[in-house]
Amino acid sequence: MSLAAESTGVARTPAIPVLAVVGVGLIGGSFAAALRQAGHVGRVLGVGRNAQSLERARALGLIDAAATPAEAAAQADLVMLATPVGGLGAVLAQMREHLRPDTVLTDGGSTKAEVIDAARAALGDRIGQFVPGHPIAGAERTGPDAADAALYRQRNVILTPLPENGAAALARVRAAWQACGAQVLDMDAADHDRVLASVSHMPHLLSAVYMAQVVQAADADTRLALAGSGFRDFTRIAAGSPEMWRDIFLSNRAAMLAELADVRAVLDAAESALRARDGAALQDMLAVAADARRDWRKESH
Amino acid sequence: MSLAAESTGVARTPAIPVLAVVGVGLIGGSFAAALRQAGHVGRVLGVGRNAQSLERARALGLIDAAATPAEAAAQADLVMLATPVGGLGAVLAQMREHLRPDTVLTDGGSTKAEVIDAARAALGDRIGQFVPGHPIAGAERTGPDAADAALYRQRNVILTPLPENGAAALARVRAAWQACGAQVLDMDAADHDRVLASVSHMPHLLSAVYMAQVVQAADADTRLALAGSGFRDFTRIAAGSPEMWRDIFLSNRAAMLAELADVRAVLDAAESALRARDGAALQDMLAVAADARRDWRKESH
Repeated sequence: MSLAAESTGVARTPAIPVLAVVGVGLIGGSFAAALRQAGHVGRVLGVGRNAQSLERARALGLIDAAATPAEAAAQADLVMLATPVGGLGAVLAQMREHLRPDTVLTDGGSTKAEVIDAARAALGDRIGQFVPGHPIAGAERTGPDAADAALYRQRNVILTPLPENGAAALARVRAAWQACGAQVLDMDAADHDRVLASVSHMPHLLSAVYMAQVVQAADADTRLALAGSGFRDFTRIAAGSPEMWRDIFLSNRAAMLAELADVRAVLDAAESALRARDGAALQDMLAVAADARRDWRKESH
Repeated sequence: MSLAAESTGVARTPAIPVLAVVGVGLIGGSFAAALRQAGHVGRVLGVGRNAQSLERARALGLIDAAATPAEAAAQADLVMLATPVGGLGAVLAQMREHLRPDTVLTDGGSTKAEVIDAARAALGDRIGQFVPGHPIAGAERTGPDAADAALYRQRNVILTPLPENGAAALARVRAAWQACGAQVLDMDAADHDRVLASVSHMPHLLSAVYMAQVVQAADADTRLALAGSGFRDFTRIAAGSPEMWRDIFLSNRAAMLAELADVRAVLDAAESALRARDGAALQDMLAVAADARRDWRKESH
């Protein structure tokens, strides 16, 4: 961080003279804001299909100007693709022939295996310029107004480097995230997708399934009137964007189905214990869960 | 509340000259503290098997003296049974022959059908003196030190009156809860158990099952290190007392199994949609959940 702070000096060339952000909402806008605040970037270009969002991002100072994918590819030293996972391949395909050899691309998508497949298909022999990434940061708010230079501070950012990535490309992406205040970890893409299926996507699926069941009950009004603080916490994530989560689930389908089979095995055992009035088995499961939750990040929660 | 406040005047007889609380922890201790603060009770007796808890409750001013079940039955105008659901029948059996004809009993148990069965078996023809109840209030902390005169303010308390309950007995219990600042609702016991299975017990089961699955995975450490705020909220209730929740699940077994079948139906449909890559069906379910959660208590959340 001290190096980043030094680089705000007028006489220095910023680490990234031109940054392009595709998607100027929470993820992309916060990335731009954090790098600008750290003096890590010079000019910032914004790419997107929504002219109103781009104009709002400019008014907020997140970007300096709007650009097409081709312009961004030709001018940027680093391109952050902060688009929905499903739209990434199309943008990369538009950029490919305009990319400079030393332009580095990265993304902020919640799943990695599918993104990498799409990037390989779109970039072909330029795939080494794409460093897949995923910042683990909240996504409850959306749009340029949700952008926050502090969003990534002390958050984990996972990179899932490709065999084709050069050291310089990796270093550029890593340094950018560190300038945002994040901790950067490297993982295998399949490991990432399995872990995120477990700790992020599965809670969302279970919370939404449960909430849908409650509201479709004949006595839903009574239920919702008597729901308390446990219900409130358990269902908070179910309010998230249906479109975004649909895309995440589909994009991480294989890992989700595998995790779901494991969750079902524990659920089946609990149901069997309840059916058999097996209090000891129920208590064992509950104690494993309670101990694990109480031990989790004991230092901070 | 103004009547309750008036009754603190020295010259007045409090609405409940002698209150007995069986179990002087969060639920019973808070009941005593709230009624004392409202000037609704005179002397408070504490009943329990743990001498240390009783002494602590006395030191905290929650109770005036410890008493046996027989003494409480003979002396109290209102007895609050704030014991674990499984132990209620035994206490009532000890009280039965000592009960005055006008003593009113109530409880704070999380389930009602089983409690009522146990009370009928223990009290026989005195069952009309027992008014079943359930305050919907947090239970994360335990013991006399967790007692809080404000715990029940603006919280819902559900009574599930029996055909044998007289109007005077019902009115005494209702007035006591109102003096605690609670809103009192009447429900059928079976309706209560189904609704609570849904909005309280099911979230706990799902959260615990999920948490147990995560911590038993081979890469549990990585998972827990990368879990974020959604995971935190979704699993918060899984830290609750394994013994208490085991008892609640067993006590509400039939309603839980019925609810679980309904939750499984929605989960099965979601899994089928994911397996079939049916984005529209997934989004429909997610939208039902998101709309319901966003609409829930819009005024206060």
